[in-house]
Amino acid sequence: MSFQLDPRLAGDTHLIGELGLSRLLLMDDARYPWLILVPRIAGARELFDLDGSDRATLLAELDTVGRALETLLRPDKFNIAALGNVVPQLHVHVVARYSADAAWPRPVWGIGERVPYEGGALARRVAELREALATVLG
Amino acid sequence: MSFQLDPRLAGDTHLIGELGLSRLLLMDDARYPWLILVPRIAGARELFDLDGSDRATLLAELDTVGRALETLLRPDKFNIAALGNVVPQLHVHVVARYSADAAWPRPVWGIGERVPYEGGALARRVAELREALATVLG
Repeated sequence: MSFQLDPRLAGDTHLIGELGLSRLLLMDDARYPWLILVPRIAGARELFDLDGSDRATLLAELDTVGRALETLLRPDKFNIAALGNVVPQLHVHVVARYSADAAWPRPVWGIGERVPYEGGALARRVAELREALATVLG
Repeated sequence: MSFQLDPRLAGDTHLIGELGLSRLLLMDDARYPWLILVPRIAGARELFDLDGSDRATLLAELDTVGRALETLLRPDKFNIAALGNVVPQLHVHVVARYSADAAWPRPVWGIGERVPYEGGALARRVAELREALATVLG
């Protein structure tokens, strides 16, 4: 069984690039800078499904992505979560939060409707993320 | 500065015990088996505030707690999250979810009102968790 991105995840996101273990996606929701890491491991549902080496790699990738977002966006808080109640394929949300954003202080899930990026905003966000992560994106 | 548990976390939870790095708490919400790990590191707000060694330890503790809950409770899914928009002290939620629970498939945060354990249910839950984690609780 080879890794295939869940079609719902694929439909809601844009590809930023590939990290060593994970596919890095941008949620198409202009309300929040919202990244998703999907380890390219077929059948993984829970963090506990990864072996210790892959878990450590995923944690390192979360750290790298978080530090890049910190430098780029200076959020007030990060929200990091592996939920998967709707899409069981293992994926980890990394959301840069601001005390003035649309959901604050609530979590972002299930709050209002997704607001797709418009005009050049998507291309700009993708470009700045790729630049910030250039050294680690394959 | 020494570690002190945030008073809001303290008020909403019951102590299960101490892991090597983290204080293990039970959210006083009978709707879900809901544990919280709080690394005993003064001033930590983000996962990225932990050094690599502490991050690895926290991940191992999440793994241990998750596997114990898996054996004990057989949930349909785990929800694992570091949010902290309301309580900035670094803490990681580990929620055992069932497809018939009160919030499914939504995340648990901000859904309805907390339902404190009643009667002997709290003591039973604390006891079964302590027993399941006896080998790792200090």
